[in-house]
Order: sequence, then structure tokens, then C-alpha cells
Amino acid sequence: MIIIAIVKVLEGSTITSVDESTIDCRHHQLVCIDGEGYIDRVVDESEPDFSSIKDEAVKADQLISLNPDEYLLPGFIDLHVHAPQWPNAGVALDRPLNEWLDTYTFPLEAKYQDVSFAKLVYDNLVEELVGNGTTTALYFGTIHNPANLELAKACIKHNQRGFIGKVAMDNPAQTPANYRDASAKSAVADTETFIKQLTKLSQNAAIKQTPVITPRFVPSCTPESLKGLGELAKKYDLPIQSHCSESDWENGYALENYHKRDSEVLDQYGLLTDKSVMAHGTLLNQSDLDTFKSRGVAVAHCPISNVYFGNAVLPVSKLLQQNVKVGLGTDISGGYSPSLYQNIRQAVISSRMLKDGVNAALDPNQRGTQIQPISAKNGFYLATVGGAKSLHLKTGQIKAGYLADLQVVKSPLASFGEESADQIFEKIIYHASKADIRQVFVQGRLAKGRIK
Amino acid sequence: MIIIAIVKVLEGSTITSVDESTIDCRHHQLVCIDGEGYIDRVVDESEPDFSSIKDEAVKADQLISLNPDEYLLPGFIDLHVHAPQWPNAGVALDRPLNEWLDTYTFPLEAKYQDVSFAKLVYDNLVEELVGNGTTTALYFGTIHNPANLELAKACIKHNQRGFIGKVAMDNPAQTPANYRDASAKSAVADTETFIKQLTKLSQNAAIKQTPVITPRFVPSCTPESLKGLGELAKKYDLPIQSHCSESDWENGYALENYHKRDSEVLDQYGLLTDKSVMAHGTLLNQSDLDTFKSRGVAVAHCPISNVYFGNAVLPVSKLLQQNVKVGLGTDISGGYSPSLYQNIRQAVISSRMLKDGVNAALDPNQRGTQIQPISAKNGFYLATVGGAKSLHLKTGQIKAGYLADLQVVKSPLASFGEESADQIFEKIIYHASKADIRQVFVQGRLAKGRIK
Ligand SMILES: [Zn+2]
Ligand SMILES: [Zn+2]
Repeated sequence: MIIIAIVKVLEGSTITSVDESTIDCRHHQLVCIDGEGYIDRVVDESEPDFSSIKDEAVKADQLISLNPDEYLLPGFIDLHVHAPQWPNAGVALDRPLNEWLDTYTFPLEAKYQDVSFAKLVYDNLVEELVGNGTTTALYFGTIHNPANLELAKACIKHNQRGFIGKVAMDNPAQTPANYRDASAKSAVADTETFIKQLTKLSQNAAIKQTPVITPRFVPSCTPESLKGLGELAKKYDLPIQSHCSESDWENGYALENYHKRDSEVLDQYGLLTDKSVMAHGTLLNQSDLDTFKSRGVAVAHCPISNVYFGNAVLPVSKLLQQNVKVGLGTDISGGYSPSLYQNIRQAVISSRMLKDGVNAALDPNQRGTQIQPISAKNGFYLATVGGAKSLHLKTGQIKAGYLADLQVVKSPLASFGEESADQIFEKIIYHASKADIRQVFVQGRLAKGRIK
Repeated sequence: MIIIAIVKVLEGSTITSVDESTIDCRHHQLVCIDGEGYIDRVVDESEPDFSSIKDEAVKADQLISLNPDEYLLPGFIDLHVHAPQWPNAGVALDRPLNEWLDTYTFPLEAKYQDVSFAKLVYDNLVEELVGNGTTTALYFGTIHNPANLELAKACIKHNQRGFIGKVAMDNPAQTPANYRDASAKSAVADTETFIKQLTKLSQNAAIKQTPVITPRFVPSCTPESLKGLGELAKKYDLPIQSHCSESDWENGYALENYHKRDSEVLDQYGLLTDKSVMAHGTLLNQSDLDTFKSRGVAVAHCPISNVYFGNAVLPVSKLLQQNVKVGLGTDISGGYSPSLYQNIRQAVISSRMLKDGVNAALDPNQRGTQIQPISAKNGFYLATVGGAKSLHLKTGQIKAGYLADLQVVKSPLASFGEESADQIFEKIIYHASKADIRQVFVQGRLAKGRIK
């Protein structure tokens, strides 16, 4: 009975998070994937039916055996990508935020009224993200629905699970004339149209694409659009994404214009739910975190982007201790890298700098903080389990009942003797680049690479 | 006459530093390389003899044409590598320095009394560094001369310019019994032996290998060995490398044990000369910097390593303003990455975090410093010109009279329209990985890749 449902069996070593600070590394496993793209069972070499399952898989031409220097990891979940900004990844990062937005970002996003441009960029972006091991991504699109649908088509084409938002931005004071929603009403109406269009497009897709309510951030929206978007989120029971307390400027905007915290403004319009993912949050205070905790809001930690635009380091260990949901985001193109490996590394690095401090002119006991740094294992957890929890997906771990979102990673460095599981893991996390990611599977479907 | 001396002509776009904050990006150049491995001339498309030089090169089968999406950059210079630590790159970085040294680093370094192990590791390391575009490296070896000579042989084999030090560490209080020089006298004598051995080995090598006086750092040496090494440096007029004011602990060691600054101890033994390269320097104060400036000492900035072991950020912009020499180092394996691209990125990132500060709990005006961040261009300068100046090498720029140490880099990302020179440059610096580095030349000799 069980064997009949299996369509693929991956044979090799697996590495998966057990909890936020522990990994499980096992040699010689059989990961059995069913026709729906779920992991049916993970069979250890020591189990009595290991050989018979493997034999069956060979007979049915379903066995995919990893090389000895390859490891099977869960696919990564990117909680924050501005898809239209991909052509600018790495560009002009030394400009101040307002110049970066006005001179580089908004003019680029405005170009997506051209559907053929959107198609070109989005196809390349999704392929690049998948190439880097990202099996699920939460995307900001632009205000243009035809372009946003191209993004969804690219996800379907490349077998990536997309969560896609039509960006709402209708506040004339904070958006350029050629790139803004005409009114709060049209921002909300266009969002509803997109929900329907994407739902229809996704109906027959192998990998589901989900619409997301997407107020750009408090400054670019009017109270009317925020209100309407909150109502839509409730009506359709949809995920919500935005930015919250990203920088001193953005954090200050709500205080000045609403006389409230950024999180309070979002909350008053019904935009903080347990399906909300808020990017950055570098300047969230304890009361914001309490709200996030009680509403079930997740934080998309974007460590590379935060260096350029966040003005501080998100205290990740504090969020984990307080059971605030947190995952990782690239924040293309505020963050330059499409790789969550790079973002795991920067998350660790930033957390260490938050602990030790940065200014040598200060005494060591004045220089740093008491906030504990995070480990590579914590970072791996964020990129997998943290993201899955944030999006209510049963994925991010290699175990029975979970979606078979997986990446096959070649050990990036030579080894010169026996290595412990921790060493193998750390070398992968610290060194893997796109070239080392040999295959990617999303819901059991091959999304990158070839099968021998 | 000039044509006769030419042995290779590279045709394509070039990117090179002009000064510490400016690059020069030129399309369609001919870089003519002579038989000694120097750039004889760089010919712009607009020059009258461009076509005839190109034709001559074609006829002589000397023309190597880059693809349209490839760029010719100077090779990188890595000012700080612990070659024996390569097997541990990325491992156990979350341990405190003393545990990291005692449990992971010293036991590994001790293994290099086995020459065949040394040969295996060093061959792989040098190939990896060259693969990442590093054409010159300043290496710490171990205390074992046969192993250190293997490192030199690996450099010769892979066409990398090596500066190699036999590590001196004779202080029983700060070194393990199985990995230390038997006495100050033997530390100095073995260093002198290595100087002679390497000089002999290098005599007939196509790429010169240079011995370097290498007291590990003040804590691991006795005053006697420091004194003897300073005398050797003078006797043979050799480069010197060590660590200086790397961390609170190391900076404190000299204060406690010598009642002097770390730099003062090194200086008193003649170890701060204009051929000295001191790693890290995160805790150098103004008086140390004044000493460095007046002696001509260079700092090897190792931004990734400093996050883990440096306790603060080196204020690079301040050093540049004060004309203190500074280049970049990977500090394998205190730094996990063999790539100077990654270190350029982290140098920029760390400098931004030094400016903005890290602790969100502080007011913005209390959080950061007035120390200006560095740009990607500054970082590129450090990895090329900064390194060249530190080692007194005529390389690091693409211009006539300079060594033809070059890397051919494929543009790592797709482009979606015309891009400015700055955009092309930034995308390379922020995104290039080993796979994008197609060819590497050292002194005109192919060190990586193939020529079509
Ligand atoms: Zn964003
Ligand atoms: Zn070092």
C-alpha cells in the first residue's frame, strides 16, 4: 500500500533542524516521497525494511542516490523579496534610503507596467532563487497586476512555491506620481482583483501560488487603504506582509504622523494577524514584540539589508527566547544577495557584533550588549523551520508528513579526514554557494538540476 | 621591438582602481603582457595602432579575447592566511578564542609535522585561493620547515606568489607542549634555516616565493625570540608578519606582561618596519597608528575574522585618511572564507555597522560613531593596491609596468538593460563567487582556467 504511493526515493545523508539550536545529521537514509509531494517516510539504514524499500525503488526506477559528498537539506524559505528590484541587486547601496528609493528603486519598479520586462526579470529571479536552494518565497510585486501574474507564472514554471503580493501604495506624499495607486479605493480594488486572478491561475498549477495582502509600509499608504487591506485580509483569510520599524526614519514616521508606534498603526487596521509577516523590525520595542507575540505575527529578519537600511541589529536571540516567530529574508535589493546561505552567515555575524559591540574606542564592558549571539544552527533553523512556521507550511524539516521541499548540496570544501556532523554542517552553511547546490526539489518536483 | 617581447594579449573590458575611492572601467582594451610577466602596455580601442597590435597578436597566436560578459580585474592580494588552518575553515567559530585555539587550532597545526598531510592540504588550499582570484598571499605556515616548504611548492605548482613564514612560538606559558619551538634559539635558528631553504627553492621557480619573519604574536613568543627575529629581519631585509592588538585579550597581554602597548613591544624588537604587515589591529589606538605610519607598517584588515575574534571593527576610513597602509586578509581560519570578495563585502558591512551602531535600545545619536563607512570601491582598492603597497609589489592595477596578475570575472548576474560602470563593478564585487572567476593569471602565467 505505502510503496504504491511512492514516486521518488532519495538515498543519502540528511541534515535537518530538530529545534532552534539542534540539528540532526544522519547518514544513509531513504527519503520516500509520495505522489502529492509529501515525505511519506524517512527510513534509516538500521531499519529492517531498508533494503526491501530500496530494492523496490530501484525496480520502479524511483531511486535517486546522492553522491558520498552530497547532503540532503530542507529547501530554504525566503520571507522577504522585492521581486521587481532584482535588476538592482548590489547597486547603489551606499546611498541614503531616500535617494536609494527615489533614484533607483521607485523608477525601476515603475518599469513593470511593461509586462515583457516583468516576464524577463521574474523568470531570471525565480530561477536564481531556486538555484540558491530557496523553495518557497514571499514576494512583494509592484502595483501592476499583469506583472504580478508574470511573477506567479515564473514560480509555476520553475516549481517554486510563491506567496505574492500586489503592492499597495497610495499616499501621494510618500510615493512618486508615476508609481502609485490612483486612490485608496483602487489600491484595495486592484488587490482584490489580484487575489481572484492569482487564485484562478494557481488552480491547476502543480505548485500552489498564494496571494498576499501587501501594504508597502505605513508611510506609503493612507489610512483608508490600510483599513481596506485589513478588511480584505479578513474577508479572504490571507497572509499579510509589510515592513515594520525597519529604520529610525520609518519607525519615526508613524510616531510623527499617527502619534503611535508603527506596529500600533498596522494593528489598528487589522494588519497584524497570525498570518502576518513583517520585514526587518530592527527597532521594535518590547511592547511591539508583545503585540507580535499575542497576534502571532512573524518577523522576516533580513540581516544583510539591515546593515544598509536598518540602523541597528535585530536581537534575534531575544525573539526566539520570547517565542516570537522569526524567519529569514534576503530583502532583494535592500539586501544584495539572493542566497539565504549568505543571510544565515550575516545573521550570525550581525548577532556577534551586537554582542561584542563595534567601537574600539569604548571600554569592552561599555562596547557591547548582553544579547546573546546566534549560532549557525539557529540561522539554519530560521531559514527552514522559522520560515515554515511564519507561513503555516508543513515543510522545513526532513520528516514524514512534511512537504518534500529539499536541496541536494555538495560539500563545498575538500575534507582531510573524518569530520563530525557539526563540522560537515558548519562547512556547508559557511561555504555553500549556488554552484554547490546540485538539485532542488519542491513538493517532490525537480526544480533545479538533473537526475542521473 | 615592443611587439617581439609580447607573449600574450588579453582583449576585453578592464576594471582597475585609480585611487582608494575611484575605479576606471574601460571597454575594449588590449592588455599586452611581456615575457617577464609584466604589462607592457594597455591599448585603448581609440588608439591608432589598436588594430595592428591586435592583428599581430592574432597572427602570433597570442590573443586571448574575453567574452562580452567577462571583465579583467587585477588579481587579489591576501595579506593574512594561516595555511595550516584550512581544514577548519568555518568550523567551531562560536567557541571562545582560547577554546578555539587549544581545542581546534593548535592540535591541527601540530599535525603538519606529517609532511604528506601538509602536501595534501596546502595543494588544495593554494588551488582554492587561486580559484577565488587571489594571485598573491602572505602565509603563516607552522613551526615545521618541511611542511612550510610544501606550502611553497604548492604556490609554485599553482603559479601563486607566496610570502611564507615559518611560525615562531616558543613561550611555554602560551603554547602547547606538542606544538612549540624548543627554545628561542631554535625558533630563530629554524627561521634562518627556512629563509635559506626557501630562497634556494625559489631560485628556479617561475613565480618567486619570499620568506617572511613570523613571530606568531607577542603572547606566544619570549622576548629572546622576538629579539632574534627582529635581528634576522634586518640581516636579510625581509618582510615581517604578526598580529597586533587583535582582541581585548591580546591587546591586554602586552599591557599586563610588558607594561607596554602591543605595538611598542614589537617595535622595541625591530619588528615594525616598512616591510611589516600586522594582522587585525582592531584595538590600535592613535599612538599605535602614529607608530605604524612613521615606521611604514601595514595593517592586514580581516573583517570576517574580526567579527569572531576581534571584539571591535577596525576603523578603515580613519587609517586611509591618515595614510596608514592597509590591505585585506581572509585570516583563514579565524575567517571562514577563502574569498577576498567576501571579505570586501564584510569590510563594507562592518564599516557601516561601525557608523550606524548596532544596539536598537540606544538613541540613534548615541548608537553609532562619526567614523565614515567605506565603499565597495574602497574595499576593492584594499584587496588590490592596498595589498600591493603593503608587500612592495608593483601589481594590483592594470597598467603598463605592472605585473600581469589578473583575474577574468564573468558578470555574476543577468543584466536587463544598459548598466553604468559603477553598476557593473558593484554587481561583480557583491556577487562574484569562485564559479564566476574564469581565468587567473599570475605574472602572465595561467594559474586557473583554460584559454580557448
Ligand atoms: Zn523590503
Ligand atoms: Zn591570524
